[in-house]
Amino acid sequence: MKTSKKHPRYESLKYRHMLVEGMKKGYVTQSGLIAHGRGEAFDYLLGEKTIPEAFTAEKAATALMLSSRNPVISVNGNTAALCPKDIVRLARTIDAKIEVNLYYRTVKRERLIEKILLKNGAGKVYGVGRKASKRIPGLHSERAKVDPEGIWSADAVLVPLEDGDRAEALAKSGKKAVSIDLNPLSRTSQTAYISIVDNVVRAIPNMTKIALELRKLNCETLRSIVEEFDNAENLEKIVGRIRTGLSE
Amino acid sequence: MKTSKKHPRYESLKYRHMLVEGMKKGYVTQSGLIAHGRGEAFDYLLGEKTIPEAFTAEKAATALMLSSRNPVISVNGNTAALCPKDIVRLARTIDAKIEVNLYYRTVKRERLIEKILLKNGAGKVYGVGRKASKRIPGLHSERAKVDPEGIWSADAVLVPLEDGDRAEALAKSGKKAVSIDLNPLSRTSQTAYISIVDNVVRAIPNMTKIALELRKLNCETLRSIVEEFDNAENLEKIVGRIRTGLSE
Repeated sequence: MKTSKKHPRYESLKYRHMLVEGMKKGYVTQSGLIAHGRGEAFDYLLGEKTIPEAFTAEKAATALMLSSRNPVISVNGNTAALCPKDIVRLARTIDAKIEVNLYYRTVKRERLIEKILLKNGAGKVYGVGRKASKRIPGLHSERAKVDPEGIWSADAVLVPLEDGDRAEALAKSGKKAVSIDLNPLSRTSQTAYISIVDNVVRAIPNMTKIALELRKLNCETLRSIVEEFDNAENLEKIVGRIRTGLSE
Repeated sequence: MKTSKKHPRYESLKYRHMLVEGMKKGYVTQSGLIAHGRGEAFDYLLGEKTIPEAFTAEKAATALMLSSRNPVISVNGNTAALCPKDIVRLARTIDAKIEVNLYYRTVKRERLIEKILLKNGAGKVYGVGRKASKRIPGLHSERAKVDPEGIWSADAVLVPLEDGDRAEALAKSGKKAVSIDLNPLSRTSQTAYISIVDNVVRAIPNMTKIALELRKLNCETLRSIVEEFDNAENLEKIVGRIRTGLSE
């Protein structure tokens, strides 16, 4: 069914359609669709726009990634379906690696996502097949697997749409995790070093734009941007914003 | 993957699993999965329990259905997947008809849902195949179709998990619609005659329990319960409750 661009929910229906296509191709899961619905509800409560607190977090996150030794962007099925080109562009702008990192890991899904990323201009994709030979401590099952040259040795990891267990395990392993999650109260948002409460399709291009400015700065200035950012306070402000939105 | 009953999200994972099974069988849609995720987010904000305002709405709704001439329960894919037995039990307790009513209507899906309802004890299921020969005015596509003996001639319709367009069309056609929708701000909740902001898996059994008491009362008493209920005020209280929940 084709939806008119004038439909009030055109944007939202477009992204749903992209996920459903990804599911038909075999790399988006049913859990991915349900998770997307949860995100939609919080996006709706936030007014479906990048709120100022999200932009501040995106700036701090970009400064963190730019000042890291080995920054990695983790990509799952939903992210690959929603904004593969934006991911590749951000990775190039901040000089980060891209690693496929799945909750329900199968070689078929890994290869499909790798293919999409390569098609969208990625030079190399980490974490596919046997390359994911290390395990993050504290996690069971296939979702513990990471690439020794990617997330395993990363100091900063951008995890859009991550699950709570893995966000916690990443934090415990000493890495600085940047989450993109529309629920400010989720375990992922509460655990991350920097929590971006924004839709991934807005957050990633925003970070690229910010990076084009920030990469002119030296490392010390970048680190001071990160240090000035108070994640807990920022999250509290976001919850307050949802609360206020509900009063109107 | 089998989940331990001790898992903090056991209940929520169980219902997700039921939907995924329904999808594999062909009667739950991808949109149904996304809609479920949206519901999960609001259920989370409500504390995943029946709040007092929801119970009050369930009581008024049960009184309405019991005092109606031709009450009908509308069933879609998600409802059939999540609580078919509870639907049949409620229909029997309040002497209501059950009608299959789908957004993405195909005879295959209708028949599958009919089969599930019959297997769970329903005597008759309305709205399947050619029986859905009437159209609700103001709606396009297949989702306008209703059964002349069911929703078409109903005075009160219980619509769990309904979409906004159809909820509006039902209201305009002069029927009293009772919605079950976890988002108190949705067009469905805002349009319904009585809006139950609760999870369908809790709301339906609650209504059956309430009906066992209320059906002892006469029609006049039932109508006064309905009249004393203020839907707009009740919805406002619910939004306030979410707001307060976010402060804690």
